[in-house]
Amino acid sequence: MAVYTHLGAEDLARLIAEYDVGELTSAKGIAEGISNSNWLIETSRGRYILTMYERRIDTAQLPFFLGLLDHLAANGCAVPATIHDRSGAGFRQFDGKAVALIEFLPGVSPTEPTAGQAEAVGAALAKVHLAAQDFGMDRANDLAPADTLAVLEKCGEDALAGIDPALPDILPRARALVAGWPTDLPRSVIHSDLFPDNVLMLGSKVSGMIDFYFACNDAMAYDLAVTHAAWCFPGGTFAPELGKALVSGYEKVRPLGEDEREALPLLAQGACQRFVASRAEDWLDTPADAHVLRKDPMDFVRRWDFYAEKGAEAFS
Amino acid sequence: MAVYTHLGAEDLARLIAEYDVGELTSAKGIAEGISNSNWLIETSRGRYILTMYERRIDTAQLPFFLGLLDHLAANGCAVPATIHDRSGAGFRQFDGKAVALIEFLPGVSPTEPTAGQAEAVGAALAKVHLAAQDFGMDRANDLAPADTLAVLEKCGEDALAGIDPALPDILPRARALVAGWPTDLPRSVIHSDLFPDNVLMLGSKVSGMIDFYFACNDAMAYDLAVTHAAWCFPGGTFAPELGKALVSGYEKVRPLGEDEREALPLLAQGACQRFVASRAEDWLDTPADAHVLRKDPMDFVRRWDFYAEKGAEAFS
Repeated sequence: MAVYTHLGAEDLARLIAEYDVGELTSAKGIAEGISNSNWLIETSRGRYILTMYERRIDTAQLPFFLGLLDHLAANGCAVPATIHDRSGAGFRQFDGKAVALIEFLPGVSPTEPTAGQAEAVGAALAKVHLAAQDFGMDRANDLAPADTLAVLEKCGEDALAGIDPALPDILPRARALVAGWPTDLPRSVIHSDLFPDNVLMLGSKVSGMIDFYFACNDAMAYDLAVTHAAWCFPGGTFAPELGKALVSGYEKVRPLGEDEREALPLLAQGACQRFVASRAEDWLDTPADAHVLRKDPMDFVRRWDFYAEKGAEAFS
Repeated sequence: MAVYTHLGAEDLARLIAEYDVGELTSAKGIAEGISNSNWLIETSRGRYILTMYERRIDTAQLPFFLGLLDHLAANGCAVPATIHDRSGAGFRQFDGKAVALIEFLPGVSPTEPTAGQAEAVGAALAKVHLAAQDFGMDRANDLAPADTLAVLEKCGEDALAGIDPALPDILPRARALVAGWPTDLPRSVIHSDLFPDNVLMLGSKVSGMIDFYFACNDAMAYDLAVTHAAWCFPGGTFAPELGKALVSGYEKVRPLGEDEREALPLLAQGACQRFVASRAEDWLDTPADAHVLRKDPMDFVRRWDFYAEKGAEAFS
């Protein structure tokens, strides 16, 4: 949550003039995005989000991310389209950094999702998977279980134990997960990070899915499992009605194959492994006194336990 | 620049329902305000700024600040009106803190002001002074020279010297300023912090003056001097064309008396003293490694020097 770069009104007006969007009338730095600065921009023509890419994102990958938004928006998915500049470019360099202007979408992110909202998100995710099948570009998943196992191993047993004495126990489980990871499930481009924060809703309607910066080619059922792990544990406890609604909403648009349904418990454990690894890494990178909220990796260890113990029942 | 409190979508929707402004459709935490959290709120009816008062502001003073906005807006000044809740209240308690909903105004804050903009700001300020004369409430200025001298004395000579070896030299000058401070100039409610950050503009038109949380009853010419010190030193060097435009814009709406004009150089030194004191205090309160931008008090020592040296010429 940050605005890392100060851009004055005159800078912003010069930048906006490169787009055919009217005159700048308002610009507010907004507290969103963990790896970029964002402004809510208003012009005589409409509202937009201006993103400046600060770190973590390799700008060579921007054509994939921004092209994906355009492809999905053109195919009726609730994602913001990229606004192209007067020369047709989807992003520009400004002040030494890449910037992109994207459509503003209304909606608010639920923090206490209802079953109706989970169902709508399932359906919206399935729609993305179907629409993305003929998107022409590829990006490998660099946070697959083998990658996140490497992250955990790099953290080291001692450091993990320093976060929580039970945390090193996940290492053998992660190795087993990598060894048994399914590789032949149906694929598409997946969002792979569809937490409630990344969904804008108006009541029970999905008005926007945002932050596609982890999107990659991988198993569609894995994306559903990520979303299940991210949405269905309000206050840390599994809420079966949310899980049911999410999967049911998904299947109304894209029914799961038998192989996908069977793989879900394992895929969900892989999703938990990923969030354990990224949180453990962030925890160790963040000084305890940095006044930054550190997310406890154990939250996702407990979800991992749940999926390992319940198996298919978690998705019944 | 911060959002100090996390408010979920459901919290915000419940809060917004207390106002007759339609349904919540969007809420973005914005990076504005040093002593409160702010959200840009959109409803089915319009756009608003929601402010949550976090610290520094005594909520007993909110009726003064918010009532002032209403009074000025009703009298044609470019300030955001307060939106009252269904019971007619200008602010509410939420989550243990005071919150207020205010009108959203378009415009961007200039960082490289032009003479045309300075002239418009002078005129807008004079309009506030005239309109505020029949505002029925009072608030003492708690940052008058005697108060800011006390702040500097509390910092202590050694600590001031630690910021800059030349900084303690201002103590005798501050004492002299307090002793000779004029007390019989025409008064009104003044903004007293009208930096470019606190002015929204559309081209050369003032579309909004914001952040009235230092407003108080004091000499109108002192407010003009504060604004002069805040606007007319781009890059740290006095820009005579900005100063001329500011005063000329002011006088088109409210001509200065001879006593006010003569007092301006002294009043401007008092303004500088205030910003030296607040910056020195913040500097000493902020650890050097806190990743927070500390503003150098010496910037305003140099402006103080300028006003002391040039006298009336600074305003000619």
